[in-house]
Amino acid sequence: MEALFEVLRENGTISEGHYDRLIRALDHEAEVAEAPKQVKVETEGGVEASTYDGAFSFQLGGRLMVDAAFYDQDERENNLGDGTELRRSRIDVEGRMFHDWIYELAVDFADAEGKVDVKDAYIGYEGWWPASFKVGQFKEPFSLEELTSSKYITFMERALPNEFAPGRNIGIGGHRYWDSFTIAGGVFGEAYDTDTDDEGDEGYGVVGRLTYAPIHQDTRAVHLGAAAEYRETDDEDQIRFRTRPESHVTGVRFANTGRIQEVDHTIKYGLEAAGVWGPFSVQGEYIYTDVDRNSGFEDVDFNGWYAFASWFPTGESRSYKAKKGAFGRVKPRRRFGALELAARYSTIDLTDGPVTGGEEKNITLGLNWYINPQVRAMANYIIIDNDDDADDDGDVQGNDDPKAFQVRVQADF
Amino acid sequence: MEALFEVLRENGTISEGHYDRLIRALDHEAEVAEAPKQVKVETEGGVEASTYDGAFSFQLGGRLMVDAAFYDQDERENNLGDGTELRRSRIDVEGRMFHDWIYELAVDFADAEGKVDVKDAYIGYEGWWPASFKVGQFKEPFSLEELTSSKYITFMERALPNEFAPGRNIGIGGHRYWDSFTIAGGVFGEAYDTDTDDEGDEGYGVVGRLTYAPIHQDTRAVHLGAAAEYRETDDEDQIRFRTRPESHVTGVRFANTGRIQEVDHTIKYGLEAAGVWGPFSVQGEYIYTDVDRNSGFEDVDFNGWYAFASWFPTGESRSYKAKKGAFGRVKPRRRFGALELAARYSTIDLTDGPVTGGEEKNITLGLNWYINPQVRAMANYIIIDNDDDADDDGDVQGNDDPKAFQVRVQADF
Amino acid sequence: MEALFEVLRENGTISEGHYDRLIRALDHEAEVAEAPKQVKVETEGGVEASTYDGAFSFQLGGRLMVDAAFYDQDERENNLGDGTELRRSRIDVEGRMFHDWIYELAVDFADAEGKVDVKDAYIGYEGWWPASFKVGQFKEPFSLEELTSSKYITFMERALPNEFAPGRNIGIGGHRYWDSFTIAGGVFGEAYDTDTDDEGDEGYGVVGRLTYAPIHQDTRAVHLGAAAEYRETDDEDQIRFRTRPESHVTGVRFANTGRIQEVDHTIKYGLEAAGVWGPFSVQGEYIYTDVDRNSGFEDVDFNGWYAFASWFPTGESRSYKAKKGAFGRVKPRRRFGALELAARYSTIDLTDGPVTGGEEKNITLGLNWYINPQVRAMANYIIIDNDDDADDDGDVQGNDDPKAFQVRVQADF
Repeated sequence: MEALFEVLRENGTISEGHYDRLIRALDHEAEVAEAPKQVKVETEGGVEASTYDGAFSFQLGGRLMVDAAFYDQDERENNLGDGTELRRSRIDVEGRMFHDWIYELAVDFADAEGKVDVKDAYIGYEGWWPASFKVGQFKEPFSLEELTSSKYITFMERALPNEFAPGRNIGIGGHRYWDSFTIAGGVFGEAYDTDTDDEGDEGYGVVGRLTYAPIHQDTRAVHLGAAAEYRETDDEDQIRFRTRPESHVTGVRFANTGRIQEVDHTIKYGLEAAGVWGPFSVQGEYIYTDVDRNSGFEDVDFNGWYAFASWFPTGESRSYKAKKGAFGRVKPRRRFGALELAARYSTIDLTDGPVTGGEEKNITLGLNWYINPQVRAMANYIIIDNDDDADDDGDVQGNDDPKAFQVRVQADF
Repeated sequence: MEALFEVLRENGTISEGHYDRLIRALDHEAEVAEAPKQVKVETEGGVEASTYDGAFSFQLGGRLMVDAAFYDQDERENNLGDGTELRRSRIDVEGRMFHDWIYELAVDFADAEGKVDVKDAYIGYEGWWPASFKVGQFKEPFSLEELTSSKYITFMERALPNEFAPGRNIGIGGHRYWDSFTIAGGVFGEAYDTDTDDEGDEGYGVVGRLTYAPIHQDTRAVHLGAAAEYRETDDEDQIRFRTRPESHVTGVRFANTGRIQEVDHTIKYGLEAAGVWGPFSVQGEYIYTDVDRNSGFEDVDFNGWYAFASWFPTGESRSYKAKKGAFGRVKPRRRFGALELAARYSTIDLTDGPVTGGEEKNITLGLNWYINPQVRAMANYIIIDNDDDADDDGDVQGNDDPKAFQVRVQADF
Repeated sequence: MEALFEVLRENGTISEGHYDRLIRALDHEAEVAEAPKQVKVETEGGVEASTYDGAFSFQLGGRLMVDAAFYDQDERENNLGDGTELRRSRIDVEGRMFHDWIYELAVDFADAEGKVDVKDAYIGYEGWWPASFKVGQFKEPFSLEELTSSKYITFMERALPNEFAPGRNIGIGGHRYWDSFTIAGGVFGEAYDTDTDDEGDEGYGVVGRLTYAPIHQDTRAVHLGAAAEYRETDDEDQIRFRTRPESHVTGVRFANTGRIQEVDHTIKYGLEAAGVWGPFSVQGEYIYTDVDRNSGFEDVDFNGWYAFASWFPTGESRSYKAKKGAFGRVKPRRRFGALELAARYSTIDLTDGPVTGGEEKNITLGLNWYINPQVRAMANYIIIDNDDDADDDGDVQGNDDPKAFQVRVQADF
């Protein structure tokens, strides 16, 4: 408009006085229109509203995962139970305030007993970017697979050694990245739903993680990472590790230490490696857990590892995010989506000294169909191999070697 | 603007060069403005954001229903308990992604024990419209009253035979409509909160529904429908039917089969009919349930039906949606809203062979005030008639004939 | 644009016909653009959408509070339990429909056992403003501190006598304000999570509150208030008062009447006073509770009071809202936020006649840093003094005088 008025003034169509009057009218109009225009609204299924200056924003998203699982049982005494479930049904609200302050509150409603499950619930400060800080409940920086969102993991369930990953607890943490490096650490109590009423003091942990990505391009990446956590138990001095057989519809957990008494603290170490070469990728992790017990009780240690390879026949690449040191969203190139084939070997050993939690070794074959960037169908076939000790905490028969076939449809918004 | 520039060029006020310069400025401005303009935001209490091309959208709504009930008791041993409750307090998020993919996640928070109650939680595909498909948790297509939203039902509670309607389960289903017909069907497991941990395999059902509406105009409609469901029980081989006396504040359920053991499968049939003639309407359903038990156990069958009539003295009509085969929102014509008078007879018979669940016959008188399209006040008076067997699962005295007066204020957004 | 066309017509650049054509084009454009422009979207971390005519609006906000507490214990038998918690993680949806109708639905997800906690859940009518009416679950008008949002209270926890405040129940209420006065009242049943199944009739209460603010400017205010509630117990005729020691991480409640049997009704009186003089403010309340029991059982009465003073070294004032008779949001004046120092004395006496619930007297020192209007950090040091009867319902040792240090980071959006 201003350009028009100038042209008109230049060629004498309107006088200087008319010009001023028009500019004033224009300014007034702009002012009136300004308030609503300050906010930009976008939707890709969820919704985002943000001011143009970037000072404030709001985002509401979520995820829905619908599973069905069928078990080919081995030992008939262990009933795994075919069926369906809402694996995740989550709403996630996040935002930015006064440029530097962020928050996130994500709540999952999929629990079969009707319990709320608060996931991320933190307040963050990004005023010293690329360093950032959070206080509240969020994931301790430990394990590549744990830190990769469930929306983006390659198999339906994370691998067996994920049982060792600390996951989300309430604490305070910092994260910083450079070109190829990230460093993260924090001090954490326990999760919000670990009630300490009348139970004495909560446990707490100190954690750190370092990642290095010598290559991190769109279709090629190499990731190396290491993490460690020291954690004191709460006043009950107990700890338990147990894990489902990479299938969540069943409630059976073969590998299971039961409650280990008189635990003073645990120390965990994790090593991570991953590589992406165009449509091919590999990923692996090893986690070692040292359980230090009070004097008079034998220390024990457990460990587990997994490795997997994946291939996109349709040519896409897994998306590595060097700033986070984790994987992100795969966007299909074609109208009919992307296909991914994957195979994983994983193992966890929960037997040591007096603790006979069992050893489990799983082979998983996976097929993923990325229908569009936000909708994905998955199928997994899992060959489960438990040793004699892996007996669901003694409740059921050991040495059970069932197979599981499970499918998922997921959407995130 | 382009029209202006053309006029100015036509009458020689601006030169061709000036014209080009102005058009370029205009194009640039349009480009800058485009991004935010792609999304249209609307609110009618909730919020909706949608891209102008219809490819993506987001909607957040909900419903609030506040009830109070007062009981005129008959047998003093059965304490129905006057009081108040939040009948429903629900948030409903839904959206569209990449034109054809939809999702919905609706969560109700009204449970008095603080349990989450996930309602619709599905991912859908509408690429072959008017055929559509869903996977996740949603209502099995069975029963006109069940498929009519609680926001729009004529009485505060659905009729007694609604106990037989399968309601929401996790499964996969399809729906298609023609001018006067709808057909819907699916295969469903159990609801998300029916935990199968250590319980063996989940049950599953196959369901189909057909509706025919020879007349479906704004103020006149005739609806005919039929549905059937075959359902295998889970590995516990149990089933139970029990229902509150069309009043939800009380926890007493007079008609109650208790847990019927050794059930192999059930087969349900439903017949539906409804008509709308201007301010008058009638509606009725009959549901028959056949319970097939394992060999050595007597099969039983139960049934129930209801019929009601309603009249809007203020002239509105009940809103029939032929594409869904269900009823929708009433919009008052006048400033002070619409009034509806309604009367219903309903009955359920849960006694057969060895099962003495009781027979209940209720008469309900209803008055609805549709204050505006989204706010409604309701009052129901229910005359309850239980036979000797209808005794709240044997816990309380049979042949109880209380009366209930209950009121509701509801808003949906 | 119209101004431009008029100028052009005036000075003869365009003819009357051209003018009409341009105005028509302009009108058409305005019409096309109108729909999305009707809604104004704003974000300050949450989101608000409202139509320009004020008839409809939607707002989604929430609050996050992350706490850690450390206890300096006195009697070692009473384990208060250091730890962390999500004190509040709440999503709040509210809106307006057809000018006069409002709703609010606020749900808190912070409960450590995974229970949903519905807070405000009401439908309101504001057609006779400044009188307004609500039906549903909301706070009974009683107690200045209770009616001041947890986002704005001066200390991390409300004072001990807050145990007597009725808080949120399901009912119907009205509120009106004049220049210096507010009056509010209502009739309330019990809260949505007080299940009456098989428990007989719910209790109910009648409540009224009057406030007078002879001065209510931005930086100076005087508040006086009085409230009373008469409440009948439910059919179980029981009541219990118990309170944590102004620290919520612990589950220990020293002052605790246990279940008082055979209660017919309670009558509560509350007196409130507060003053703001620039950066200085004081506030106090006294609540008296009369417990009337059935014949043959001795009546008892309890009471409590608190008083606190606060000072903003950075010069801000506490924000008094005369229309509500409560305090609101503090907005820091400086880039690095506002600081507030505060000290409180509070006491509750739950011993009378046969009831020996104990007496507790606490001194709290508080430091608040209002980082920006929506983010606040808090630290409280609490010196707790329990008498011999204050023994956590007899479960633990009396006369325990621990100290608590607790910190919070909170954000609201």
